[in-house]
Amino acid sequence: MVRTSPKVLALSGGVGGAKLALGLAQVVSADALTVVVNTGDDFEHLGLRVCPDLDTLMYTLSGLANQTLGWGQQDETWQFLEALKRIGGDAWFSLGDRDLATHIQRTSLLAGGLSLSAVTTALMHALGVTTNVLPMTDDQVATLIHCQNGETLAFQHYFVRDRCEPLIKGISFQGIETARRAPDFEKLIDSDSLTQIIICPSNPFVSVAPILDLAETWKALKAIDCPVVLVSPIVAGMALKGPAAKMMTELKMPSTALAVARFYEQTYPGLVDGFVLDEADAASADAVSALGMRPLVTQTVMKNLADKQALAEAVLLFSDELAG
Amino acid sequence: MVRTSPKVLALSGGVGGAKLALGLAQVVSADALTVVVNTGDDFEHLGLRVCPDLDTLMYTLSGLANQTLGWGQQDETWQFLEALKRIGGDAWFSLGDRDLATHIQRTSLLAGGLSLSAVTTALMHALGVTTNVLPMTDDQVATLIHCQNGETLAFQHYFVRDRCEPLIKGISFQGIETARRAPDFEKLIDSDSLTQIIICPSNPFVSVAPILDLAETWKALKAIDCPVVLVSPIVAGMALKGPAAKMMTELKMPSTALAVARFYEQTYPGLVDGFVLDEADAASADAVSALGMRPLVTQTVMKNLADKQALAEAVLLFSDELAG
Repeated sequence: MVRTSPKVLALSGGVGGAKLALGLAQVVSADALTVVVNTGDDFEHLGLRVCPDLDTLMYTLSGLANQTLGWGQQDETWQFLEALKRIGGDAWFSLGDRDLATHIQRTSLLAGGLSLSAVTTALMHALGVTTNVLPMTDDQVATLIHCQNGETLAFQHYFVRDRCEPLIKGISFQGIETARRAPDFEKLIDSDSLTQIIICPSNPFVSVAPILDLAETWKALKAIDCPVVLVSPIVAGMALKGPAAKMMTELKMPSTALAVARFYEQTYPGLVDGFVLDEADAASADAVSALGMRPLVTQTVMKNLADKQALAEAVLLFSDELAG
Repeated sequence: MVRTSPKVLALSGGVGGAKLALGLAQVVSADALTVVVNTGDDFEHLGLRVCPDLDTLMYTLSGLANQTLGWGQQDETWQFLEALKRIGGDAWFSLGDRDLATHIQRTSLLAGGLSLSAVTTALMHALGVTTNVLPMTDDQVATLIHCQNGETLAFQHYFVRDRCEPLIKGISFQGIETARRAPDFEKLIDSDSLTQIIICPSNPFVSVAPILDLAETWKALKAIDCPVVLVSPIVAGMALKGPAAKMMTELKMPSTALAVARFYEQTYPGLVDGFVLDEADAASADAVSALGMRPLVTQTVMKNLADKQALAEAVLLFSDELAG
């Protein structure tokens, strides 16, 4: 069933979020779905503007994603990187030959005066993606990882170069005080047309928090008269991808779905109406209820397109029920 | 024989110049050879600083040059370019995946504040090139092609995008009035140590003229007490590579080696002491003499390394004779 009447907003980080976004794109018509994407992971590398989460969305929605690596493009090659190493270049960030076209084209269009929103739309359209995908902001926000050893790392240095090895003690978002929501994101919030808000199974601390913290977006979303449903990024105590579980341990919380629910309730009180847990975490449903969120226990691990579509359907149905 | 006592300066454009430079590098010790390279062909493309002649020198001297294409790197692939086309990027200039590393690294180092001279040295050293290769200037000079149809084209638009098809009526070098010689080029000229100056078989109008016109370099070279030997880029009425012969016709001169000699004598009177003609043009030797240049007739077509080395030897011997 393709839904046309709802107006769905999904908030997403990278891989997990992109999977659910792809599921949503199967069951919601393109003009009824907007995916707002974290840009706190963005950085400048070798003079190029790299937007990892936007690219993951773009490659996933266009069918170009590299399923084996979990990032970048399929059928990727690494001639550039090898040549860069040969001339002594900074090669810790693996830029594939195909992927590079995205970064060069984006950097070039930005230098020509286009906003990141406009560049994103242009790239998505060129690859045939009709879903409305927006960066959270056209301004620059940079996620910083504060380590227990006193160091502060730019996110990609922590995530890629240092393979998430440093123990963290906190996270901050440089530039978030002055950053504004991307114009189309702002319009959507102001439109009073949203019927469903979905927080994808993305890292709460470095993927979702930048979006919710930006210009107090969480308060703006909470004020909208439609359910907010969150899909847990933690299943059976583990993050399916990325450092969420490890971060939780270092931030002195259990790495469980319940702890994710508790984090949201403490940080963004009253925002999340429905909390989707995996069947593996069914035992936590009552405790989630006790936090004031309605739980939905379902299969949340998305291994194939059918899984993605099924989870999208389940989340939308759940949201309908919450709307009453 | 490797010469150590002479101090050789070679002026070079792209392919033909790089071939003779490689020959010279075989027979002159690295610290006794400086190649100064045209940068008028340089341009910014997709936000990257591309220096075609410097790259041709670098790839030729390091053994990485693509012999089949005559430009770029060997074993090159084109995944970037294909991906760029897919997202609607500007793909008229063929940037190979390996080649791209050079442009990105150069652009990044320039953005970090290094001069083009310093960047060139860094890249050459990384690839094991010990010959001293310098851009003619660290400032920006842009060769402009004035077409008979009234259009003015940036050089690479004329050369690559439009495949040298437009008929030309003139050439100018934007920025040349204020550009200064690269510091090490300047030092070499001031050092009073040069024993041989060689103008490689490069396009007189778009490869050599920018170097000679820059800060009246031709007068500075003429004032040095050592022979200037030029190797004709035209053999039997044809340019071995590039548009030199076609340009000569459109600029209303015969496309002959003799016309090249005449062009130099008229434009840079008294500069060229010795003029190297191919055996195919032996009949013009007397006419070259009549212009006041000593002719040397020899085999100038460089098909393999032995040819390059032989021509380099012949040119150096000829220069020795001229020095008397």
